[in-house]
Amino acid sequence: MMRRLLAYAGNTIIGSISYTVRRRATKMDEFARIRHWTAGRHSSEWLDQRGVIVGIGDDAAVIEPRLELAGLSGPLQWLMAVDTMVETVHFNSMTMEDGDIGYKALAANISDIAAMGGVPLHALVSVSVPAAYGPERMRRLYDGLYACAEQYGVAIIGGDTTSSPLHLVVAVTVTGAVEAGKALRRSGAKPGDAVFLTGPVGLSAAGLHVLSAPAGEAVRAEAGGLAALVQAHRRPAPSVRAGRLLQARGTCTSLNDVSDGLASEAAEIAAASHVRLALHEELLPRSGSMAAYAGLCGLSALDLMLYGGEDYVLLGTMAAEDAAAAKEAFHQEGLPFFLIGEVEAGEPGVELITRKQNGKSLSRARLEARGYNHFQG
Amino acid sequence: MMRRLLAYAGNTIIGSISYTVRRRATKMDEFARIRHWTAGRHSSEWLDQRGVIVGIGDDAAVIEPRLELAGLSGPLQWLMAVDTMVETVHFNSMTMEDGDIGYKALAANISDIAAMGGVPLHALVSVSVPAAYGPERMRRLYDGLYACAEQYGVAIIGGDTTSSPLHLVVAVTVTGAVEAGKALRRSGAKPGDAVFLTGPVGLSAAGLHVLSAPAGEAVRAEAGGLAALVQAHRRPAPSVRAGRLLQARGTCTSLNDVSDGLASEAAEIAAASHVRLALHEELLPRSGSMAAYAGLCGLSALDLMLYGGEDYVLLGTMAAEDAAAAKEAFHQEGLPFFLIGEVEAGEPGVELITRKQNGKSLSRARLEARGYNHFQG
Repeated sequence: MMRRLLAYAGNTIIGSISYTVRRRATKMDEFARIRHWTAGRHSSEWLDQRGVIVGIGDDAAVIEPRLELAGLSGPLQWLMAVDTMVETVHFNSMTMEDGDIGYKALAANISDIAAMGGVPLHALVSVSVPAAYGPERMRRLYDGLYACAEQYGVAIIGGDTTSSPLHLVVAVTVTGAVEAGKALRRSGAKPGDAVFLTGPVGLSAAGLHVLSAPAGEAVRAEAGGLAALVQAHRRPAPSVRAGRLLQARGTCTSLNDVSDGLASEAAEIAAASHVRLALHEELLPRSGSMAAYAGLCGLSALDLMLYGGEDYVLLGTMAAEDAAAAKEAFHQEGLPFFLIGEVEAGEPGVELITRKQNGKSLSRARLEARGYNHFQG
Repeated sequence: MMRRLLAYAGNTIIGSISYTVRRRATKMDEFARIRHWTAGRHSSEWLDQRGVIVGIGDDAAVIEPRLELAGLSGPLQWLMAVDTMVETVHFNSMTMEDGDIGYKALAANISDIAAMGGVPLHALVSVSVPAAYGPERMRRLYDGLYACAEQYGVAIIGGDTTSSPLHLVVAVTVTGAVEAGKALRRSGAKPGDAVFLTGPVGLSAAGLHVLSAPAGEAVRAEAGGLAALVQAHRRPAPSVRAGRLLQARGTCTSLNDVSDGLASEAAEIAAASHVRLALHEELLPRSGSMAAYAGLCGLSALDLMLYGGEDYVLLGTMAAEDAAAAKEAFHQEGLPFFLIGEVEAGEPGVELITRKQNGKSLSRARLEARGYNHFQG
């Protein structure tokens, strides 16, 4: 660990440069408290099921690479990903409550494991804490983190807590496991494959708009379903079950989670697989709450769906001959599944196919891989 | 991944709260550049030796848990740790150059693997970048990071780059492997064991003082060996070989890296092992450069050694009957090894034994587990 703080006595002027300073003692007490909260949160049985020999409390965690972990069997491979949330960049005090920050920081990482078809197992958490976050706020953040961990069966095996001069930064690393050689990558989409989504998109972006739009009050009184939009933004549900179903079918040729937005994720698959993805506007799953809210606010529901992001559903491609059966299998599990387009040969990219107003002919437009620009429409 | 930025159009006033804003487009270009630098840095042979099936470039890295990794054989366990460096808290533009930040962020993590007796294998890197860090500075940071990775045989398998409103934050997660059941923990020290250090301490703290002390100029002109102190602070050398030698002997009962300072690390071993560590002041390895600099500046060399930290040598305990042979074995490998005290039964804690001025009798004093308070003596 490196917990070393530069502890200067107040403002020190060196040459012409002045810089401010942290003191160590008070912060250390707070960090000791955080270690206290995190210690013993998981039962030893929970840790054992995930191969954890040593969790939080030594220089490093120790993990037994068992062949049977959390329900997986046979030769496994490990999955690892890191994701970071920065105050004022990814959230602020209006858009996220303290517990949501912890919950979502882990959920976004779990989604990366889901997007490989794997089972999430462990997480390591780095939190840089500004003085404005007192112990109560940090406790709520950790409560949210552990709520997500328990929901998805993830053992938190390591952490580092440091001071931060002004803004909260939460970086989470997550591990998972997948059957050896069976991770679902971005690069296997083939012309003729079907393109699917495992849930509606645009809800999180609409939820963010609800939480931060200046013109929100009047609309809030009128619109229904806002709680669902806000929930989608604050406590997203990573698609672990969907990823496992897709992995088990053996017909899925590429997979991404919708973190940056549908258009951007589709472009990543197209680029990695050297194919074109053709998406049908009329097949995109449109949430009623999202569309109603967009209508009331004069936002484009289509833009929210294409560029919103942070929905953490899965976008992928699969053998066309298995598409109907996959849809049926998802529905039997109570999970949504939408076929939204086809993979084509051609210059890598994404095209949106829209029915013209006459209802008969279709038009095609190339989609940019940009993100949604809130408040710039 | 979660690369979503709240992209407001300039300053948005909501209620009475005003907050500033990032734009997405420019930053994304820069991040694309970072991905470009990090892609293809490691050869496929290098990655293969470390079991890396998929590195940077998908939702998660994929790792094959081979039984023989980087020279290890037999059943293995995995080690994982996370460590964070925050601008103004752990470093600033005077104390660290850009390349040093990347180097040290990884080195501090590798040290956690060394402190378990393991071999470092992989790293995932989260960097939150303020606008003030242009592409050239980021390139230097990544150059330092990869320099450390190559030096210690670590494959960088994942990363996340986000904006930061003001300060640079680098969080690194590292993995390693160790022979199953043979990780060196903090909790095994027994009364009668010898206490050792694998290198001198206090150099990094002295180097930090060189880099940031207001009264530095005159002293700098006089003192020798300052470059070594600065190097110790900026590019510390984690003790992987020492950790492996200790692991292989089978007589090491506890191990920590000296990140927070000798007194603090000794206190951790004492607390985890329920023993008292008695350290002899006259046996503590005192670097000539450090002691000379401390003398010139009126600092206490003993305080720098006890409370300085960030030296990344290893502090541990071992069976007393193997201590002389271990020292000999280290010296044969060209590595330093210092026996500095004994483990005693008693209330957990750390005591310093000092020879009185008459040179004959000894005095004992209990050491606090505090950090070194720069500029407060």
